[in-house]
Amino acid sequence: MDEPDTQVVEQLRQLLGDSGVRLQADDVMPEVVVKPGSTAEVSEILKICHAADQALVPLGGKTGLASGHFRTGSEIGISLERMHAIEEIDPLNRTMTVQAGCILQVAVEAAGEEGLLLPLDFGARGSATIGGTVATNAGGNMVIRYGMMREMVLGLEVVLADGTIITSLNKMIKNNTGYDLKQWFIGAEGTLGVITRVVLRLRPEPKSQNTALLAVDDFSSVAKLLHWLDGNTAGTLSAFEVMWPEFYEFITREDSVHTAPLPHGSAFYVLVETLGSDPQADAESFENVLGGAMEQGLVADAVLTRSQAERNAIWEIRDDVLEFFKLGPIIPFDVSVTLDKVESFVSDIRSGVKQLNDPICIVFGHLGDSNLHVLLGNSDAGDFDYQALESLLYDTVERYQGSVSAEHGVGLSKREQLPRSRSEAELQLMIRMKKMLDPKNILNPNKLFAAEKISAA
Amino acid sequence: MDEPDTQVVEQLRQLLGDSGVRLQADDVMPEVVVKPGSTAEVSEILKICHAADQALVPLGGKTGLASGHFRTGSEIGISLERMHAIEEIDPLNRTMTVQAGCILQVAVEAAGEEGLLLPLDFGARGSATIGGTVATNAGGNMVIRYGMMREMVLGLEVVLADGTIITSLNKMIKNNTGYDLKQWFIGAEGTLGVITRVVLRLRPEPKSQNTALLAVDDFSSVAKLLHWLDGNTAGTLSAFEVMWPEFYEFITREDSVHTAPLPHGSAFYVLVETLGSDPQADAESFENVLGGAMEQGLVADAVLTRSQAERNAIWEIRDDVLEFFKLGPIIPFDVSVTLDKVESFVSDIRSGVKQLNDPICIVFGHLGDSNLHVLLGNSDAGDFDYQALESLLYDTVERYQGSVSAEHGVGLSKREQLPRSRSEAELQLMIRMKKMLDPKNILNPNKLFAAEKISAA
Repeated sequence: MDEPDTQVVEQLRQLLGDSGVRLQADDVMPEVVVKPGSTAEVSEILKICHAADQALVPLGGKTGLASGHFRTGSEIGISLERMHAIEEIDPLNRTMTVQAGCILQVAVEAAGEEGLLLPLDFGARGSATIGGTVATNAGGNMVIRYGMMREMVLGLEVVLADGTIITSLNKMIKNNTGYDLKQWFIGAEGTLGVITRVVLRLRPEPKSQNTALLAVDDFSSVAKLLHWLDGNTAGTLSAFEVMWPEFYEFITREDSVHTAPLPHGSAFYVLVETLGSDPQADAESFENVLGGAMEQGLVADAVLTRSQAERNAIWEIRDDVLEFFKLGPIIPFDVSVTLDKVESFVSDIRSGVKQLNDPICIVFGHLGDSNLHVLLGNSDAGDFDYQALESLLYDTVERYQGSVSAEHGVGLSKREQLPRSRSEAELQLMIRMKKMLDPKNILNPNKLFAAEKISAA
Repeated sequence: MDEPDTQVVEQLRQLLGDSGVRLQADDVMPEVVVKPGSTAEVSEILKICHAADQALVPLGGKTGLASGHFRTGSEIGISLERMHAIEEIDPLNRTMTVQAGCILQVAVEAAGEEGLLLPLDFGARGSATIGGTVATNAGGNMVIRYGMMREMVLGLEVVLADGTIITSLNKMIKNNTGYDLKQWFIGAEGTLGVITRVVLRLRPEPKSQNTALLAVDDFSSVAKLLHWLDGNTAGTLSAFEVMWPEFYEFITREDSVHTAPLPHGSAFYVLVETLGSDPQADAESFENVLGGAMEQGLVADAVLTRSQAERNAIWEIRDDVLEFFKLGPIIPFDVSVTLDKVESFVSDIRSGVKQLNDPICIVFGHLGDSNLHVLLGNSDAGDFDYQALESLLYDTVERYQGSVSAEHGVGLSKREQLPRSRSEAELQLMIRMKKMLDPKNILNPNKLFAAEKISAA
């Protein structure tokens, strides 16, 4: 790959000192990484790079699943790891002001110490940064109740490609004073600016948690169950995680570390959870609502957890996605299709898979948010055909008018799929924004859009 | 005022027919109003106007409170009143696709017939259009629970200044495929595009509603009460409306149509409401939670409503804001300040008012959303000093780092106040967006930004 401009690297070293510039040999990630300690330094770095046409990749936890943190040429990395302070937790206004390099789990725990909840949770909580989760509009396990990262951001500070600092650290719920600038940068994957600080909305910490694993006989009952729970657990339903049997049965197979809370053989396994405020009443209500679902025949079998250990055991089954990677080469997909199309979508994928060499096909997802995860791969690495599996999956998403990225973003790895979910008019409009805010294309170039696509527009 | 270009009006008449062009004599509103019947016609209208530099004002219900629908010169109005169809209600995916001219109340009732809730409600529900509520990011009475209009929009269709149609009618909760274009147009007050269709997220209709009016002795207790309720009515708290005594005591004065559910003399009156899913359990829980608040001394007196008629009676007290306009000339302000600053903010306004000629000063608001409404005016019209009252109010908002518009928008009437809540860097960035999407400044010109400010940027 190309090398960064050595003069620029020298200028950056003078600005930041030796400890502010890290060199690392790496095939895919930037080999030169600068580590600013303040928003002012981020601005200075961008001014230097802007003047010299030196491209950068903003780095968060580097655990994103769309290769948004890879370099595509001579990009320098800009890591906000030194900007990890929690600047303020404001318990009266229920906000938290954090620097972008703060690790998600650290922020969640700090909120918890004040009896408040930062309702964002997913597997990479220990490595993902607040800046990264904002830049990718992260989702996860509680979206059905609290929304995605976008809904938690009240204000932010961002540095534009030319070094201009936009400080918009709003703390108010309602603020209709002109264009809501922060929305432009949330989910833009670092292509429009470098996020440096964020004001997050916090919620009261729940006082009760009720969790169950349910066996369901058919997809129509899964959809009805979602509506039944949503309609009868007003505002408290926080998880509706569906596992197709191939998922559940492999994770709880005989020699697994996980024991099966429900017997194998059902069509669907659904993890449901509510987060409430009255432990006794909520537990009774949860049981009643599930009882009602069983009476209607929506649920064939159920296990309600009675302890934190039992809850953890069920969540660990749902979360143990890495286990499937032991089976052989696997591609993890993250897509959305509307609820009415899910059954038919999965059925088409399975038919398609059979016409290939019948590879691994594992389906699970946050069904309450129309979000499916699909793992396609092959136990025999020799039979693994990346292209064929990818085409099958994305062709089907396109046919069902779904989204090629539900929560992981586009980055480098889904860039060529974007036209399947977005019209040419939408893409052209996005590119106009990119060209306005980053005319030299120095911010995370080739992510979302290939450089040639931008220059051709 | 200036006249629209007669050639353009003739072209538009040929496009739309005589019934598609309305002429009306009006001092503030556009005298020529075109009424497209389809997105394609909106696009044709904009192409004609764009070619001729003819400016337009997008018209919704024309009941906005920031004069966003006024003309400032020779603008033509574009009313989407003929595009009022509810194209689809999708009960399985819980979405509604509506044309922008649909009246809010019509959309809410149509959702209700399917057992679903479109959770947006405010006084002008019978005149406001869906397009207008999206363009102004409307708020209202349930924001604490369901968020503002922004949170309900899953997708939209918008026509840009040059007639380009952007159709982005997404129905999925999670969709991270590039920039979230719809966010650019929500709350942009018709200055960046004309919204033609919207996909809205619907919620299950609540099965229980519990409402109370509470008397509270001091502001610190109001804030604690908000946190107590929010923390103990998990996810169901839907209203926390605070009335300062001048509001409550005037509306429930002896010769009023409203009777006072609680005696006069308290420091604050708070209307609280939960929307739940289990009528019996929710009523018990509501009573328990309020009992807990009384035990802690947060609530001095309380009336719980036992019927829809009692509920309506309390809401009518809160909603009867027009009553104050009988007192004399009054300016209604809509501002935000963070909860920690509310008491001191109101105290400063009162002190300031006393130094003028002690005019009317009425305060109430959606405290759960940091949103205050302040009415300043004078019973003696001769003493009414618009400038002095406006300066007092906005000077104080600026000093408290508040927002000059919480939910009403900026339009024409708050345009000059915008720099009090937004930095010059933020404003310049907004203007760059405006210039990119509407380089001829034909879409709602002079709203948000004076034309001179845009051309000087």
